[in-house]
Amino acid sequence: MLIGVTLLSNLAMSAAGFVVVLRIIPKFKDMFIKAGLKGVDMSKPVNKEIPESAGVISGSVFLIIMFLFIPVPFIQYWTTNTSEAFPHHEFVELVAALLSICCMLFLGFADDVLDLRWRHKLLLPTMASLPLLMVYYVTFNTTTIIVPKPFRLFLGHDLWLGPLYYVYMGMLAVFCTNAINILAGINGLEVGQSVIIAASIILFNFIELFGECWKAHIFSLYFMPPFLGTSLGLLYYNWYPSHVFVGDTFCYFAGMTFAVVGILGHFSKTMLLFFIPQISNFIFSVPQLFHLVPCPRHRLPKYNKDTDRVEMSCVMFKSNQLHPIGAMFLYIFHQFGLVCYRQGLGEDGKYSECTNFTLVNFVLKVMGPLRERTVTVILLVLQVLCSGLAFSVRYGLARVFYDVV
Amino acid sequence: MLIGVTLLSNLAMSAAGFVVVLRIIPKFKDMFIKAGLKGVDMSKPVNKEIPESAGVISGSVFLIIMFLFIPVPFIQYWTTNTSEAFPHHEFVELVAALLSICCMLFLGFADDVLDLRWRHKLLLPTMASLPLLMVYYVTFNTTTIIVPKPFRLFLGHDLWLGPLYYVYMGMLAVFCTNAINILAGINGLEVGQSVIIAASIILFNFIELFGECWKAHIFSLYFMPPFLGTSLGLLYYNWYPSHVFVGDTFCYFAGMTFAVVGILGHFSKTMLLFFIPQISNFIFSVPQLFHLVPCPRHRLPKYNKDTDRVEMSCVMFKSNQLHPIGAMFLYIFHQFGLVCYRQGLGEDGKYSECTNFTLVNFVLKVMGPLRERTVTVILLVLQVLCSGLAFSVRYGLARVFYDVV
Repeated sequence: MLIGVTLLSNLAMSAAGFVVVLRIIPKFKDMFIKAGLKGVDMSKPVNKEIPESAGVISGSVFLIIMFLFIPVPFIQYWTTNTSEAFPHHEFVELVAALLSICCMLFLGFADDVLDLRWRHKLLLPTMASLPLLMVYYVTFNTTTIIVPKPFRLFLGHDLWLGPLYYVYMGMLAVFCTNAINILAGINGLEVGQSVIIAASIILFNFIELFGECWKAHIFSLYFMPPFLGTSLGLLYYNWYPSHVFVGDTFCYFAGMTFAVVGILGHFSKTMLLFFIPQISNFIFSVPQLFHLVPCPRHRLPKYNKDTDRVEMSCVMFKSNQLHPIGAMFLYIFHQFGLVCYRQGLGEDGKYSECTNFTLVNFVLKVMGPLRERTVTVILLVLQVLCSGLAFSVRYGLARVFYDVV
Repeated sequence: MLIGVTLLSNLAMSAAGFVVVLRIIPKFKDMFIKAGLKGVDMSKPVNKEIPESAGVISGSVFLIIMFLFIPVPFIQYWTTNTSEAFPHHEFVELVAALLSICCMLFLGFADDVLDLRWRHKLLLPTMASLPLLMVYYVTFNTTTIIVPKPFRLFLGHDLWLGPLYYVYMGMLAVFCTNAINILAGINGLEVGQSVIIAASIILFNFIELFGECWKAHIFSLYFMPPFLGTSLGLLYYNWYPSHVFVGDTFCYFAGMTFAVVGILGHFSKTMLLFFIPQISNFIFSVPQLFHLVPCPRHRLPKYNKDTDRVEMSCVMFKSNQLHPIGAMFLYIFHQFGLVCYRQGLGEDGKYSECTNFTLVNFVLKVMGPLRERTVTVILLVLQVLCSGLAFSVRYGLARVFYDVV
């Protein structure tokens, strides 16, 4: 009963968050442009400058909502003479989760403004996840995992991972923040995918409310609706044709919010299932991210003014300067039809060209040149399908690997 | 014994923080300039652009140190089989304090980048202090204050303030963040005063370690040395002639850190005693802050290129457009010799001029034109003297007002 009221207040505040974001983004636009937080939309007939890093607005509104929400789940302990002791561990979880998210929002914004280096992008999410891991250590410290059935013969029924589990959780935060950031480059994609992931998590949490670990899923339900509400407000302005860009700020903030609920809600594996497109895109991108294959500064698709469509973007390089491992990846990916690859280019035939290793390019390779909005829609439909797949794996295949009731 | 080890590790980390800030500020300089976070130092013979908002560097290092420090005070509960339960309330205090500080650092930086409006400057610290007040509510919720002796005849021995006490604490956060921000405008002043306040608080905490409330003062000692260390690193570059400006970022961050330790350490009244120069400057500034007397965008002293000294800065206005209450303030302040005031200026004699209502200008009025560094030194000496006064009030006069042992 009380939980119902708590969740309903949360929903009401999320709806308010949606409205607030819708109303204030236009008011901040000039402020962002004046501050130099702006970018040119390369895939439009007219190259207009639009505000960058608008994620900082939806993120701040999210934080304010969460700050105002903090007391709500605990009101019963103050108003009535309940016999239960105040649940300090739940309270600290909430505060620590917000600390990690706030920290990441700040770092994302600092990255947008200052253009930080790659080492900061890996170091800072790790730092921001420290409070989270600390709280995990204090409140649960269960680093024993249940071994999937097929491996039990070798590993036993459960396995103590100890510090390794904390490394896994720290890496989860780094992965989530960066994975959304690299599946990007077309209007509405960053926020769109986050909205679908958030909606999937909410659905999953609702299903699990009837399970054993309902408490952990309620915790997740404190965070996800406000995130969904504020992000939908942002999506309204980021949808094709974008009036604002969301910036690294949003990707970092969104990634950390997912990592937080996944870790403290104890469903990090299921959460990773909702990241199938991001994981695929990340694995696909690895050769370029580690510079085994040349990687341009931006890998967004190429805009064709004449047709108003976007096409695959390519990277050209001297054939003999290709890293041998990169060449191997290129060969494999080409064999599997994931990329286009042409050799013997340039006047002397010493240059090669391949399409950038991104999911966006792969969609364009399969479908041919498309309008920008269509690419976003296809990728978001793919995200929804992957969420469906995630649910079937979680509730279907899980029986094969674990003893599920 | 364990507390000694905890405080020593904290000191070691603070020293490391000092070194890190010293080393990394020069590396970030170009990044800041490139991002447009730069300002011209008006009080120098050559108007060179220097990086602004360097407080974000010392603030981030402070946060990283504190994140790494979080587990230290609690190690005994994990390593030994202590019979005591894990002190969740202390843990949540630490995390919530960091959340408020992180939030304020983020908002300060956003303010520097985006140039937020005045209403944001009042609203946002209030928001940022919410987690803090929540934790205060959960862990203490003692809003009963001991009435000073002279008033006991009317009010009784103690007084229940209830919600009013939370309003007081919220306003304390707003006041601290803004009070440092307006006693500013010359090289080294913002960080210098913060360093002296922090050192005073540390001294006070050490004295109180031998008192009844030693636990609360240990809490404050977790925060102040890292703050002092990182700020000293910043002061090195902000000292005359400044190589970096500290920005609103630093003032907000410093103010919130002080408010946090004052509130959760239960010595907010003593802390306000360390703010005597800031309070005087604030009261002095009120007529201009509330636009009863015209207030220019910046009130920093005027630089005289020929003498390389700074002089009082003035504001000119039409005599008949002065607000009547402003005129009253101007009259009183002028009678007390706090400002210079000249009437009958302009070709038609319809204009008046007065010096800006700041402590910096008052020092220049008393001492005449001075080198910029001398002004900073005088104001910092004043800050030290006021700390001395604060200690004598706290340990001497307190007997008059309270039953002190």
